[in-house]
Amino acid sequence: MDTVSFRNTDITGGFWKKKQEIIGNVSIYNILKRFTETGRFGAMDCKWKIGEPNEPHIFWDSDIAKWIESVSYIIEKEPHSELEKIIDDVADKMEKNRLENGYFNCCYIAKNPDKRWTDRTDHELYCAGHLIEAAAAYYRATGKRKLLDIMEKYTDYIYKVFVEDKSAEFVTPGHEEIELALVKLYDLTGKEKYLDLCRFFIDSRGVTDEREYNGVGHKYSQSHLPVREQTTAEGHSVRAAYLYSAMADLAKRINDKKLFSACETIFDDIINKKMYITGGIGSAARGEAFTVPYDLPNLTAYSESCAALALAWFAGRMTMLDCDSKYADTVERVLYNNGLSSVSLDGKSFFYVNPLEIRTELLERNTSQENTIENLPITQRREVFDCSCCPPNITRFIASVADFIYTVDENTVYVHQYINSETKTERFIIKQNTDYPNDGKIAVTVENAEIIALRIPYWCENFDIKLNGEKADYEIKKGYAYIELKSDKNEILLNIEITPRIVYPSRKVRDCIGRAAVQRGPVVYCAEGVDNDFSVISFKLSSEPCFKTEFSEQFGTYVITVNGTVPIAGEKLYSFEPEKRMEAKIKLIPYFAFANRGETDMEVYLLC
Amino acid sequence: MDTVSFRNTDITGGFWKKKQEIIGNVSIYNILKRFTETGRFGAMDCKWKIGEPNEPHIFWDSDIAKWIESVSYIIEKEPHSELEKIIDDVADKMEKNRLENGYFNCCYIAKNPDKRWTDRTDHELYCAGHLIEAAAAYYRATGKRKLLDIMEKYTDYIYKVFVEDKSAEFVTPGHEEIELALVKLYDLTGKEKYLDLCRFFIDSRGVTDEREYNGVGHKYSQSHLPVREQTTAEGHSVRAAYLYSAMADLAKRINDKKLFSACETIFDDIINKKMYITGGIGSAARGEAFTVPYDLPNLTAYSESCAALALAWFAGRMTMLDCDSKYADTVERVLYNNGLSSVSLDGKSFFYVNPLEIRTELLERNTSQENTIENLPITQRREVFDCSCCPPNITRFIASVADFIYTVDENTVYVHQYINSETKTERFIIKQNTDYPNDGKIAVTVENAEIIALRIPYWCENFDIKLNGEKADYEIKKGYAYIELKSDKNEILLNIEITPRIVYPSRKVRDCIGRAAVQRGPVVYCAEGVDNDFSVISFKLSSEPCFKTEFSEQFGTYVITVNGTVPIAGEKLYSFEPEKRMEAKIKLIPYFAFANRGETDMEVYLLC
Repeated sequence: MDTVSFRNTDITGGFWKKKQEIIGNVSIYNILKRFTETGRFGAMDCKWKIGEPNEPHIFWDSDIAKWIESVSYIIEKEPHSELEKIIDDVADKMEKNRLENGYFNCCYIAKNPDKRWTDRTDHELYCAGHLIEAAAAYYRATGKRKLLDIMEKYTDYIYKVFVEDKSAEFVTPGHEEIELALVKLYDLTGKEKYLDLCRFFIDSRGVTDEREYNGVGHKYSQSHLPVREQTTAEGHSVRAAYLYSAMADLAKRINDKKLFSACETIFDDIINKKMYITGGIGSAARGEAFTVPYDLPNLTAYSESCAALALAWFAGRMTMLDCDSKYADTVERVLYNNGLSSVSLDGKSFFYVNPLEIRTELLERNTSQENTIENLPITQRREVFDCSCCPPNITRFIASVADFIYTVDENTVYVHQYINSETKTERFIIKQNTDYPNDGKIAVTVENAEIIALRIPYWCENFDIKLNGEKADYEIKKGYAYIELKSDKNEILLNIEITPRIVYPSRKVRDCIGRAAVQRGPVVYCAEGVDNDFSVISFKLSSEPCFKTEFSEQFGTYVITVNGTVPIAGEKLYSFEPEKRMEAKIKLIPYFAFANRGETDMEVYLLC
Repeated sequence: MDTVSFRNTDITGGFWKKKQEIIGNVSIYNILKRFTETGRFGAMDCKWKIGEPNEPHIFWDSDIAKWIESVSYIIEKEPHSELEKIIDDVADKMEKNRLENGYFNCCYIAKNPDKRWTDRTDHELYCAGHLIEAAAAYYRATGKRKLLDIMEKYTDYIYKVFVEDKSAEFVTPGHEEIELALVKLYDLTGKEKYLDLCRFFIDSRGVTDEREYNGVGHKYSQSHLPVREQTTAEGHSVRAAYLYSAMADLAKRINDKKLFSACETIFDDIINKKMYITGGIGSAARGEAFTVPYDLPNLTAYSESCAALALAWFAGRMTMLDCDSKYADTVERVLYNNGLSSVSLDGKSFFYVNPLEIRTELLERNTSQENTIENLPITQRREVFDCSCCPPNITRFIASVADFIYTVDENTVYVHQYINSETKTERFIIKQNTDYPNDGKIAVTVENAEIIALRIPYWCENFDIKLNGEKADYEIKKGYAYIELKSDKNEILLNIEITPRIVYPSRKVRDCIGRAAVQRGPVVYCAEGVDNDFSVISFKLSSEPCFKTEFSEQFGTYVITVNGTVPIAGEKLYSFEPEKRMEAKIKLIPYFAFANRGETDMEVYLLC
């Protein structure tokens, strides 16, 4: 089964068109501004000296790279000479400042070129990976080869250092990323060497070698076992999900069943035991990591933006190996929740960490000691971070969101996501006309396909399908409705009932015991203090909830009101009198829109 | 109003007699053994050299001192030549190894005598304070002057350094303790100089002076404001409560109304906003500190043993300034809960941190990074800690528990705690015959008093009082029933109904929302996994709870069974089906007895 690249698809309206416009019109310019101010673009000159401001960081190349990749996806649809000029300038600087052997890292070259390949944790291969992705994207968008040539030469050098000479002081990257980039480079160039290098890094990981140890624990960088023997999601969640994505990529390219099986087992471990309802993963701030099953705290949720995006990428790749709706359901969970919560509604600012609960009264906790690590996430998005991996990750994610819509094989079109769009591949023409997720009606027209497979979302209670005006015959397999198409051109109308539903988390999730969330279609809701004149954490859903929905232009989807009770405040810390409650209605907004109206309490899970 | 020292009281049977026997027969010997093994007693030789094992620590003197104080309280009631010999040996070593000016600190003398009084955080004055307490206690118990003379000379030297010469590099101790010790020394010797030194330290705290800053924040060591202007409990909770105790001591000795008022305001802040139901304080592990109001997490509760004991000492002192039952109620809360949970039932091992919830499935959380600070408390008591302040604090607390029973003034006996005992003061003879807290009948006989004031506990719904066989006339003032006594010798029978009651914490306490605890008399209960074949965190109390109680020899009080429901396990992480529940009964044991039967889940707060 093959992916259908976003390059084949135009998002022609609806929910995601607006999101892409904000990314293209606001976010990439604001990131450019902040990355310029903080010295990231300037650092490509490789001239920084001790004592100067804006000391380059080991991952700054990757920040620039992800911005280039984002812009490439945008200008592929609509050329933009000024943006191209910025990228060409970066390419010129890289060409000028790289080492003779092809090596480039603005931080190492400026600060300590002789230390290259000495520290596994120092992100050199991670940066190289992102630069490869950027180079491939920019070449595809513009046909310009300079950046691609730079990165091919650099990759050839990496191959020499790691595979041929084994002269680095480590075997595999401490932060995975280059593996999946190498597959992209292989797909673009057809050069087996790049797939071999990917395979070398994947096969070497977790194999006993003292150089594999990275000083902060094997599990942290998924080096605890050979990857085909790994069965659980472990360690730093972004590293992990980038690795798993590359494993899925490689499994497909070399038809490695054992590798696919490891991917599926790990994927199931994530979605059944370690994933927030928002699609967030890596619940522990310490190590930005996966932790034990069901350890999903709300207030201290880490749930890094990059990790959720990486989970979607991993899931999207798995769809190509096995068309089971658990994968595209997970993509959808990320898309409408943790993916979108990562960026402000105005596109200017970003969350690195995405909590599921904010209690403003706890923000000043434990201020009696200075200079301690914050143990509660920030409550408002920021325009740039010292470690600013998330902002340009979100822009490239949204700019290429159409990647998730379809896969195809010889005679079948698989529809994984419902997004208003027009798609042309060499073989098929497909259009979707829909206001999803605001409305559940999806009109699909498809030409030249013999079979269409429509994902029936996990949250769907009722749906019907019409084919060319008649009730369609379909067969459900692994969450997809398969319909045989008799005509060359077919009109399919999928109608999915979208109403607010209550989601009950497992009683094994400590923070959610006695609580439930509200979801409408794929969109998870939350309550914010700013909308409700009581403490939202104390609101208790009625046992006979009556939901009312109203469209919100501000949020681009519906807000929900539901009835329940709130406590009548007592003043005692400990009382022998049961709490008294009174009727109340709570307003819920989409989780992705939280924290857009100032600092206020927020709660995904309501007492029930 | 005056305290009645434990020296005047014999605990003649009942609940506390058994606890004192365990302390006297087991705990002090086990602590002696562990303190010997770990080099603490040996360190008094002051001969440690770099490279040798058992490097002395800056607070080791205080460990030895609290052990001496505990033993002194025990041998005051029952002389013991072998224990005395150990203490005499310590005194000999101190006499031999102290500096000529009287200074003694086994760590500083062995490691860096020239650095004395250079680091405010380094516990020198704290150690001196505990040695003063020990010296006073040992002199009172045995009449032997050597240790007292050593500490008087040392204290005179401290007075010279801090008050006269101002030659130290700081003004007040980074860890309070010496202040309250100086009051004890003043009470024993009558020397005004010691009270003046106490007053100097208390009056200088928080007064602007760059030397007052201790490097980890002013609030951490209560130096953020002059003490009379402080209105909230802040910073390291043990430091804080030792300071507040000394402030109350000083307020009484010098009749300082403003100082008393600050004490009361801070006390109210603690008990109304910052105290666990168990009497624990200092909920934040970071800084071992007070945090914002209502920030009382159960799973990560710090609630250090020493802090709870210090709260009781603070409250006990406040009773002498204002006979309001909120003080003795708080003493009682500590006594039967966090105070006793600090030590194992067999007396051998100790908790430093006292959580209100244990989830064994979370103990392995986030092990993908090595060498990180534990963020969950240990689940089993230990015999010794590197920082082993708590064990000998618990022994001195229990050995002198009778200090909390009475205060007296010219014609009134105030009964604050109900403990089976016989007391003689110069003026009064009082006996209590009771099996409290297992039973609520307290027979008090009192001679020569004109008025008796009986505390009616905060948890009491129903009580009656008989005086010499007749229904007594009484007047309730600030939680005490005042009864005029007409005879020289009077028999009072106070009968307090003791039944299990449900306690509802404020909805402002995040971790307790939708939950409640069970208390029987002053004893808070908890559920342990070992007694219940379901996940105790998921048990929901019936809306019509039916309590059954049964006496447990093992715990020395009643266990409780109560009805409710538990979920029928579903396997899904997120489900659209509400949880199904089935009837169940949960067994509850006293909180003070948790973690005596191996590692298992524990929960104070039940869903309700």
